[in-house]
Amino acid sequence: MPRVRVILVEPKSEGNVGAVARAMRNFGARDLVLVKPCPLGDEAYKRAMHGVEVLQAAKRADSFDSATRGADLVVGTSGIDTRSEKRFARISIAPRELGTRVAPMQGTMAIAFGREDFGLFEPELARCDLLVTIPAAADYPILNLSHAATIVLYELFAARASTRTRREASGLEKEKLHEALASLLDATDYPMHKRARTNVMFRRLVGRAVPSKWEFHALMGVLQRATKRIERLERGR
Amino acid sequence: MPRVRVILVEPKSEGNVGAVARAMRNFGARDLVLVKPCPLGDEAYKRAMHGVEVLQAAKRADSFDSATRGADLVVGTSGIDTRSEKRFARISIAPRELGTRVAPMQGTMAIAFGREDFGLFEPELARCDLLVTIPAAADYPILNLSHAATIVLYELFAARASTRTRREASGLEKEKLHEALASLLDATDYPMHKRARTNVMFRRLVGRAVPSKWEFHALMGVLQRATKRIERLERGR
Repeated sequence: MPRVRVILVEPKSEGNVGAVARAMRNFGARDLVLVKPCPLGDEAYKRAMHGVEVLQAAKRADSFDSATRGADLVVGTSGIDTRSEKRFARISIAPRELGTRVAPMQGTMAIAFGREDFGLFEPELARCDLLVTIPAAADYPILNLSHAATIVLYELFAARASTRTRREASGLEKEKLHEALASLLDATDYPMHKRARTNVMFRRLVGRAVPSKWEFHALMGVLQRATKRIERLERGR
Repeated sequence: MPRVRVILVEPKSEGNVGAVARAMRNFGARDLVLVKPCPLGDEAYKRAMHGVEVLQAAKRADSFDSATRGADLVVGTSGIDTRSEKRFARISIAPRELGTRVAPMQGTMAIAFGREDFGLFEPELARCDLLVTIPAAADYPILNLSHAATIVLYELFAARASTRTRREASGLEKEKLHEALASLLDATDYPMHKRARTNVMFRRLVGRAVPSKWEFHALMGVLQRATKRIERLERGR
């Protein structure tokens, strides 16, 4: 995964700048460059929360070019996607695809977010190696600046994170669960002609739920307890 | 795709409420319910931008229960994930998985976001069919409220693309299922101190599996049959 540099171009709301710093901290990005930003005061620091170090360490730049200097890949964000291939300068990919594409990359990726009102200007877009557009409702696709940054950083983080591990019930354990259900059906004199499909129903349900080992044991407990209870009562009759 | 109801529980920052309304508009969600919110003034309306209609149409509720009423699936968000399977009440899925799972669903899905400082409380979490945690940096995983909502809504929007339809068990039906399990635990003299967590385990399992109406009826049949059998045998003793 490349090192991520976030560039905010002429942000007008200090609250947005603070909120972006927080989102960066949430998703493990550290390098923030501000191109001709608004003054940063209490509101920016309040919104940054634990991202305050990111905000304090932010560099200032007086142009888009100097902000992107040294980056191995320059990515721009644009709220306007286009279907016209002639306007190739605006053709963009989704944030998820960005994550997948850059995951194997080394070096530094700069990702630039434009002004709250006008976005990135044409010469800035022209400088970008890649454009990203966040898919959103056609009737109002313009996201808040920090929301846009959050989604892109989230996708970059997700692309980096390997699958979470949870101790799932093994195949053998799941078979025991199915046997336990079969025993319960047996104990309750469940109609024979319904058993096969009820077993399959349960198998599918468990298959979709992907139970943990703990859940496996708890479910086994419930089923076995009911079966034993019935068997004991039957014997005592 | 289900209709999405966003619930904010005791939000303290009106700016966050406005920002969530904007994100909802960006991702095509309309129903906002506020549980005992802070007063909403200029800042909320300013941050809502074109989401102002969502904000104006927001309903108020005085409890988590009344806010979730009528929902077929209640999803909670939690900043704390757990590796301990015993603390199953905190086991959660990622927003992307949520999108995939609920895409074929009909009806209404309520998604609840907790207080900025304390999140959702235990009784609120216990009521949720499913928990979602946004994967984030281990050293600071707590996102801003509107950022968290933005990511979840973005994933739901992204998942809408491919939709299958399947007749899902309704919220009411699922509650009946949970009652049926409770009756079985009762009939089997299941240890009192284990009941609450076994009930929540079952709720989560069913929440993740998203059972169809047919599966609901089959499961109900199994549980009720076992309970009745035990009760009848007990009476005959």
